[in-house]
Amino acid sequence: MARGKRSGEFERIARYFAPLAADVPGARELRDDCAFLELPEGQELVVKTDAIAEGVHYLSDDPPELIARKALRVNLSDLAAKGAVPRWYLLNAAFRRDHDDAWVAAFARGLAKDQAEFDVRLVGGDTITAPGPAQFSVTALGTVRATWGLHRSGAHAGDDIYVTGTIGDGALGLLACRGTLTGLKPRQIEHLVQRYRLPLPRVDLGHHLLGVANAALDISDGLVADLGHLCESSGLAATIEEARVPLSPAARATLVLNPALIETVLTGGDDYEILFAAPGSAAKVLEHRAREARTPITRIGSLTAGKGVRVVDAAGKPRILSRGGWTHS
Amino acid sequence: MARGKRSGEFERIARYFAPLAADVPGARELRDDCAFLELPEGQELVVKTDAIAEGVHYLSDDPPELIARKALRVNLSDLAAKGAVPRWYLLNAAFRRDHDDAWVAAFARGLAKDQAEFDVRLVGGDTITAPGPAQFSVTALGTVRATWGLHRSGAHAGDDIYVTGTIGDGALGLLACRGTLTGLKPRQIEHLVQRYRLPLPRVDLGHHLLGVANAALDISDGLVADLGHLCESSGLAATIEEARVPLSPAARATLVLNPALIETVLTGGDDYEILFAAPGSAAKVLEHRAREARTPITRIGSLTAGKGVRVVDAAGKPRILSRGGWTHS
Repeated sequence: MARGKRSGEFERIARYFAPLAADVPGARELRDDCAFLELPEGQELVVKTDAIAEGVHYLSDDPPELIARKALRVNLSDLAAKGAVPRWYLLNAAFRRDHDDAWVAAFARGLAKDQAEFDVRLVGGDTITAPGPAQFSVTALGTVRATWGLHRSGAHAGDDIYVTGTIGDGALGLLACRGTLTGLKPRQIEHLVQRYRLPLPRVDLGHHLLGVANAALDISDGLVADLGHLCESSGLAATIEEARVPLSPAARATLVLNPALIETVLTGGDDYEILFAAPGSAAKVLEHRAREARTPITRIGSLTAGKGVRVVDAAGKPRILSRGGWTHS
Repeated sequence: MARGKRSGEFERIARYFAPLAADVPGARELRDDCAFLELPEGQELVVKTDAIAEGVHYLSDDPPELIARKALRVNLSDLAAKGAVPRWYLLNAAFRRDHDDAWVAAFARGLAKDQAEFDVRLVGGDTITAPGPAQFSVTALGTVRATWGLHRSGAHAGDDIYVTGTIGDGALGLLACRGTLTGLKPRQIEHLVQRYRLPLPRVDLGHHLLGVANAALDISDGLVADLGHLCESSGLAATIEEARVPLSPAARATLVLNPALIETVLTGGDDYEILFAAPGSAAKVLEHRAREARTPITRIGSLTAGKGVRVVDAAGKPRILSRGGWTHS
């Protein structure tokens, strides 16, 4: 493949990445060794780091804009689920040898778009030429009112379980990328692929959950596994009513064609929706706040004393899942 | 090569990495999605991230303890040079497929040693199996009295230029690792190799420079290049007196055998010493603080109006360097 100019590290940083740091004085135009960041009074720092690797978390020929945005968004999703407001991020970019300046420019454009969308700024990082496949680590920094942040623990028996958005699109989208979903309309395929490539971190809702939700996390390992994590940390059991799990029209159409894919929906992961627990008495407040945040939420089940996650179908019959690891109800 | 057991990601985190986060409550035993960190009042956050890749920044058969410590130390070195006290770090580890549990355990032991030595704690991270060579990104978080942090800019014409420790050992150590240094005694080789593999971030001195030094950075690109960065940011020129540049006995012995290696010493990098500028009037205070911090410092030259870095030999004659890029005096 014909490849264009490849500038050196300093030049790439100055040309493509320094503009992303322009309006944070403490980032010092990425020309110093560290960033200096001031936290608003009464806030604590919330930190998350996650890496995505070529061939593992994204496909080699995915558009660079989307790779960049995914690397950032999977981290913003974690901050959002803790109730934090994302503010800054750092990037370790290990570009592939044949990533030319045009590729890097497109990657940086992706970041610029998401900076505007989520009001976050690049404050530091490092770029190298990878000796193998490309890899991108993002460290996201947010703030939350001190001691108010949400955790996996903290849920109570009797709490309702909620999710934002729709479940399963990411995992079905990966199948669609691999060409193993058949019978869907092109725009349904496109919807699922887009949801896999570009998750939507629920940053608008997260901080609205403070003082209302008792526990929260984002769904990256799969609904059942992540609910398992919440249950384990909170010392509780969960029951999900399968019929209540919110699905996109594309996911619904997929399940009509292949009902066995319900397991992929429930356990596949890559949802990047917020899963949270809240007392029944908070239902009205939650409804109001979700509307304020323009983020759909759905109650899908409840927590009880005990251990493990149980999924029941419309008839109340437990569903046996072969994957998920948390079905010991 | 025979390889041992390889546990899954969750098990590795629980067994090898969670103990490193045990005494930071906000790290939540690495069992939540984010870390929650409180900054002391009046302090700002100082952040740095840097990655090291197998075959680029370290050699494939380097001991895992030393790889881990180097990944951490190159970041601590930056914080130290800004006058910050390092407090926490996050780790993105992309282990190689054949890194077994024993390898990971040794890697974690290296981190534990340095946590004790530098009083920092792991608060989060991510481990994946790399599709290619291994790679480790560290994000280091420190604190400094708000607005007091040191930058590359800020130096004044007339300031003296100082360095900590000795210069050139890291770059000569890399040559020694490659077997291209001959004629040295085994313990001299060992000294240089050790300095390449395990830099010593000057964390004890850094915060002692606050209120005394006008500008500072750590030497990673090479003395001449990094002094060039300081000059460019401060809008000044520098003259280094070559005879004053502090050398270890092993580096001295190397130069006796091969005087041309002076260029490697001055431009080779991997020193991880602090380079700083301070007014002549601060000399006595600096001497006192360096003694307090048990860190040797040496005045190697001075700053004037102008542009570029000039190195002069014992006779006052400018040395022409083929590398360094900053010799346009």
